[in-house]
Amino acid sequence: MALIVQKYGGTSVGSLTLIQSVAAQVARVRECGDKIAVVVSAMGDSTDRLVDLARELAPEPDAREMDALLATGEQVSAALLAMALRARGVAARSYTGAQLRVQTSEAHGKARIQAIETEHLRADLQSGCVPVVAGFQGVNARGDTTTIGRGGSDTTAVALAVALQADECQILTDVDGVFTTDPRMVRDARCLQRLSFEEMLELAGQGSRVLHLRAVEFAKKYNMPIRVLSAFHPSAGTLICAEEPTVEAPIVAGIAFNRDEAEFNCFGLPDLPGTAYRVLKPISDANIDVDMIVVSAARGGKTDLSFTVHRDDYVQTKRIAAGLMQAFPESNVVSNDRVAKLSVVGVGMRSHAGVAAQLFETMAREAINVRLVSTSEIKISVLVEEIHLERAVRALHAAYGLSG
Amino acid sequence: MALIVQKYGGTSVGSLTLIQSVAAQVARVRECGDKIAVVVSAMGDSTDRLVDLARELAPEPDAREMDALLATGEQVSAALLAMALRARGVAARSYTGAQLRVQTSEAHGKARIQAIETEHLRADLQSGCVPVVAGFQGVNARGDTTTIGRGGSDTTAVALAVALQADECQILTDVDGVFTTDPRMVRDARCLQRLSFEEMLELAGQGSRVLHLRAVEFAKKYNMPIRVLSAFHPSAGTLICAEEPTVEAPIVAGIAFNRDEAEFNCFGLPDLPGTAYRVLKPISDANIDVDMIVVSAARGGKTDLSFTVHRDDYVQTKRIAAGLMQAFPESNVVSNDRVAKLSVVGVGMRSHAGVAAQLFETMAREAINVRLVSTSEIKISVLVEEIHLERAVRALHAAYGLSG
Repeated sequence: MALIVQKYGGTSVGSLTLIQSVAAQVARVRECGDKIAVVVSAMGDSTDRLVDLARELAPEPDAREMDALLATGEQVSAALLAMALRARGVAARSYTGAQLRVQTSEAHGKARIQAIETEHLRADLQSGCVPVVAGFQGVNARGDTTTIGRGGSDTTAVALAVALQADECQILTDVDGVFTTDPRMVRDARCLQRLSFEEMLELAGQGSRVLHLRAVEFAKKYNMPIRVLSAFHPSAGTLICAEEPTVEAPIVAGIAFNRDEAEFNCFGLPDLPGTAYRVLKPISDANIDVDMIVVSAARGGKTDLSFTVHRDDYVQTKRIAAGLMQAFPESNVVSNDRVAKLSVVGVGMRSHAGVAAQLFETMAREAINVRLVSTSEIKISVLVEEIHLERAVRALHAAYGLSG
Repeated sequence: MALIVQKYGGTSVGSLTLIQSVAAQVARVRECGDKIAVVVSAMGDSTDRLVDLARELAPEPDAREMDALLATGEQVSAALLAMALRARGVAARSYTGAQLRVQTSEAHGKARIQAIETEHLRADLQSGCVPVVAGFQGVNARGDTTTIGRGGSDTTAVALAVALQADECQILTDVDGVFTTDPRMVRDARCLQRLSFEEMLELAGQGSRVLHLRAVEFAKKYNMPIRVLSAFHPSAGTLICAEEPTVEAPIVAGIAFNRDEAEFNCFGLPDLPGTAYRVLKPISDANIDVDMIVVSAARGGKTDLSFTVHRDDYVQTKRIAAGLMQAFPESNVVSNDRVAKLSVVGVGMRSHAGVAAQLFETMAREAINVRLVSTSEIKISVLVEEIHLERAVRALHAAYGLSG
């Protein structure tokens, strides 16, 4: 008999009909003899609607009140799911974050979970009752309701699974699992059976929207296996867990990509300590995240610096960069907001050479210019013209043998 | 400097614009130098919408989950009002019932308030912050959210005022105060300046929808003055407080009425102990409230019993009564669901004779048949044909000199 924590996202509880089918699914897990606790998000777009209400009242609503407001969304779906379960004859109880004493840090809107009291939950599980927990929320030391950031219900589920020492944390969503790449782009993209935490972190961070980064970090820290699977039809989904040394991992697990990139190339900067700092500091001061950073080898006392930002920050970054270049009279900046990044991810890269070579060979064959490259131990990211992105992903997907 | 508790009902916070005007009103109280705590109901019909959702999932939704669900309605309006206050520069904090530890009895859906922790509230008031409390809800000994029944926000407000030893509990609503009778029926009905708790109890119980019965009972018990006033424009409203022995009360304070009555007359019942019990027991067993009960003096070993029920229960009561009459072969039952009750209320009746005489005189002059009569120390209720109700109320309003 296993203990499972299941999390259902907003699209999975977006209507009463869907809530009833979630109840049926939860009932099936119990019929299999497993114990189960459930975490739910707010119904469909109800969080967005609450945000809109608040914004109409105040351009920058008070953070404490915003959390008190938003937390109601998950409380509604938790109560409704508990009712639907009871209507099917399955004992169930809903809990708010405050009620379970999901202790978080102070910071409203982006609090971090510190501890979860499991007394109620263990009593429920013991007695055959299904606890249904409102995700995304907790309570700080002052007794005020907090929220833990968008997508936080994934993190609630993992934290709950860790606190209950569950066997598995299942994230039920609107896709069948984690794919080798976006199946909307590459038709023969394959659902991965298994993935390491590290690979999932690179994929999640690189634009794969299936699972929230923080939840994966949390699961990795406590070695809690996560399974991503469909809320709408039976599937084994993708198991995300610690790398097993005995299993030879495929060299490349998947390809993630991100269209929302903008590129800046600063040419002819003085090759002096502190130059990169002088360029990047004003950008970070403006609260703009810099993603890729590439500094080329110096020639004749001059060097080039390239970096990327989110496309939404393009105009502001361009203005800052133009101002900066006045401090470097011999340099100039060229920017482009029609670029995209793709990342090849796989723990097998650690022990296998040739992944990068194959990437460049494929790009050359496709006559796609690689504008920037950055690498980590288990990832190679390249920046290409956006118009070439789709062709690049397809070619690489085939080249690495990822198709089903 | 006074300490005021204000309660705003669902129609007063039914939209963002209304919430902003409530914020303006609360700000004005503070500008006058008074301290203020606010209790809010759920926005407009949001409670009804939540009830509908639950009923779609389960014909009889679990009571615990229903409370968890419904409590979110008031939490939303409390958070939004706190935001609106802050947007105006007025420090404010919203609180849920559970957060304030509004301790209630166990019973979900109809819990009773037992205690309120005032530590947070006192600290807020001390520091010039306006606490905004979600009405209608509390928490039971098991830590589960409870609700205290429809209209419960009035009771929350009075309980809060008592706990804080406030100077006055103000119920802000969509009317100017308590009127001598319904101004939609009698155009020159007058807003009462002052009313005793007892009179308000009779008026509230007799169909005046301004204020909830339980709230008035609570206020009477702790001698907390309630002021009913308009949420939409300045008015002194009606002050409901303990009777002042030094003030000579008007003999009649007001006339309440209720159209939703149905009348049953059982003729020719045996004049034996237990007959009334045998008639009324099966009706109460069916969870039907019996309102007026009149037993006539016996003649020749026979007696007549008349009673009224809510019109919604007419068909069911009729079926029960028909069955009953088979046990009393010489009796018969006549029923009528087109009757209405009106009640003349006033503490002055205690010391003044003639109120009843004037009532019967007026009814006689208007040629309106009085079908049933029942009296209390400060009230006379009569049942009339519904088509005569309006004329009866107008004539009595004039006869008792209630017009402005």
